[in-house]
Amino acid sequence: MSEIASVSIRPFDLPLKEPFEISLGTQHEASNLLVTLETESGVTGYGEGSPIPPVTGETQAAAIETARATADLIEGREVGNYRELVDELRSAFPGMASALFAVETAILDAYCRERELPLSELFGGTPGRVETDLTIPILESEVAADRAVCAAEAGYEQLKIKTGGDVTTDVERVAAVADVAPDAALKVDANQGWSPKETARFAEELRTRGIDLDLIEQPVPASDIAGLAATRDIVDVPIAADESVFTPQDAIRVVREEAADIINAKLGKSGPLAVADIAAIAESSHLDLMIGCMLESAVGIHTSAHIVAGIGAFSHVDLDGNRLLAEDVIDASGPIHRISGPGHGVIPIE
Amino acid sequence: MSEIASVSIRPFDLPLKEPFEISLGTQHEASNLLVTLETESGVTGYGEGSPIPPVTGETQAAAIETARATADLIEGREVGNYRELVDELRSAFPGMASALFAVETAILDAYCRERELPLSELFGGTPGRVETDLTIPILESEVAADRAVCAAEAGYEQLKIKTGGDVTTDVERVAAVADVAPDAALKVDANQGWSPKETARFAEELRTRGIDLDLIEQPVPASDIAGLAATRDIVDVPIAADESVFTPQDAIRVVREEAADIINAKLGKSGPLAVADIAAIAESSHLDLMIGCMLESAVGIHTSAHIVAGIGAFSHVDLDGNRLLAEDVIDASGPIHRISGPGHGVIPIE
Repeated sequence: MSEIASVSIRPFDLPLKEPFEISLGTQHEASNLLVTLETESGVTGYGEGSPIPPVTGETQAAAIETARATADLIEGREVGNYRELVDELRSAFPGMASALFAVETAILDAYCRERELPLSELFGGTPGRVETDLTIPILESEVAADRAVCAAEAGYEQLKIKTGGDVTTDVERVAAVADVAPDAALKVDANQGWSPKETARFAEELRTRGIDLDLIEQPVPASDIAGLAATRDIVDVPIAADESVFTPQDAIRVVREEAADIINAKLGKSGPLAVADIAAIAESSHLDLMIGCMLESAVGIHTSAHIVAGIGAFSHVDLDGNRLLAEDVIDASGPIHRISGPGHGVIPIE
Repeated sequence: MSEIASVSIRPFDLPLKEPFEISLGTQHEASNLLVTLETESGVTGYGEGSPIPPVTGETQAAAIETARATADLIEGREVGNYRELVDELRSAFPGMASALFAVETAILDAYCRERELPLSELFGGTPGRVETDLTIPILESEVAADRAVCAAEAGYEQLKIKTGGDVTTDVERVAAVADVAPDAALKVDANQGWSPKETARFAEELRTRGIDLDLIEQPVPASDIAGLAATRDIVDVPIAADESVFTPQDAIRVVREEAADIINAKLGKSGPLAVADIAAIAESSHLDLMIGCMLESAVGIHTSAHIVAGIGAFSHVDLDGNRLLAEDVIDASGPIHRISGPGHGVIPIE
């Protein structure tokens, strides 16, 4: 094991295939950051963060500045003491989720490359194939249906549909997708856009049309834990907490208040070690687990896929960020992520 | 990474320096089991369990039989998928804590030795020195005071005193120890022997004598979570849950019911991966963490010490099991465990 010799951070801008609209706003490109960390023994680790301001708070520039500021704390430190480093980073820069995701990933990646082990094994299992759903953003119903047809042709068996606006329009979009993709498992993500009653009306209208949903994600505002619990009480579809859970402490609150059936953990909100903690809390509380992403390239997405392979407890996998990019750092397509080590196995040389 | 080729189990009887009395009964020797696991690449992993029937339920013979029965499940399986194996073992043999502790340790040890990494790094940090307290069992006050003097001479700065019987006698024993070891940090372990009111009387009598306690461990019966919470309400000393928490699910219940200030996690109750989960739950709920042990040799104790070094969140370390043995598998004494890898670093060749 060796010390961290240097850390460098740069913007990592990745054009999208097309603008990505959700109820919180529209992303025109992935404005990410890339952390490159060198150890004194010459090993390099890579980490990516994907700030989306209405979700993570950080702009790309702010995340880059935060990541740069971590150098003072981690340079000269033993990479094998990765948990202590991550704990200190969380205390030093609370809430800086995207920046710390990138730095933490680079630390863990460098550690695993030094030890020549795949990242997944640090979390409990060997790397394997990880299957993801595909997300359909807020689009006209006909366009959304076209996407669903293309997704089915590409092999996707699970679709996640963005909602959270006008309930009638949202119902039409989901119905249009269900009509052309009758075999697909469907999830819905309202990104905080509804009230509990709107969520109930949405669920009821789909039920009367005979459309089953696997889950409804984050129907109400992130800070409204009571509203999340109330929604869960009045809606028959399982409710997932996403933006309400950034930290393991948030997960404990959801458990205490019985506010969700599922927790959607994301490295982009929590970082790898806290995602493992959230998984432990969810499993111990008999909540289901989902893993999601922001708009990361394969650097971030394969990191998440390693954690899925390692922990093995995720019932719902929504790791399609790199499938929405015009060009990824690796050549891959379709619903299967093929991951390997050491580390997360990706080298983002453009 | 390679497959598990064979597993063998044998009794591992270790005489104690002297009989060890707690409120639940007296142990005359450590009647342990030793698991030896060979992988197809020729690496050997070792694990130990230390059944104490009034705590773990299992006799030595029962634990050995359970451990033998795990062979069918784990032989031929990839050691790198250690989390999946442990999950399956827990489902197949629920409640068989000592047997699964031994088998899980042997799996993790073999995995780490194959990867040539210290066990601690699987949990987050490099191996280091780990300092333990020393336990003073139920003894006459004068004898207990003699032990405290010897402990101070041997360098122990923290003492744990067994109680849980007649409150007046217990108060006298603790006072006798405090009198001769005024600089030692004191913990008390009632091993389920008291009611909430007895605990309050005990704490009050020590307070009037000016004796501070770091914590009172498991004052009331393991299944009485309401009683634990009631004790916490009426007693000013921090209350630790020990026998009330075997699983992460138990830890969630303590959190939900606000039943303790501290969780005492033990590999002998939970196994390494579940101890990490319990640590995540406790930290996320702002509970303090303690780690304890049964009567293990250095095989089990160093496994625990690696987890302390790796996770780094344990405020109270009670890992003195091997210090109570007439002879350990390694040559060591005093409050410091010096641990190293690969794996847990101990080879129990007699």
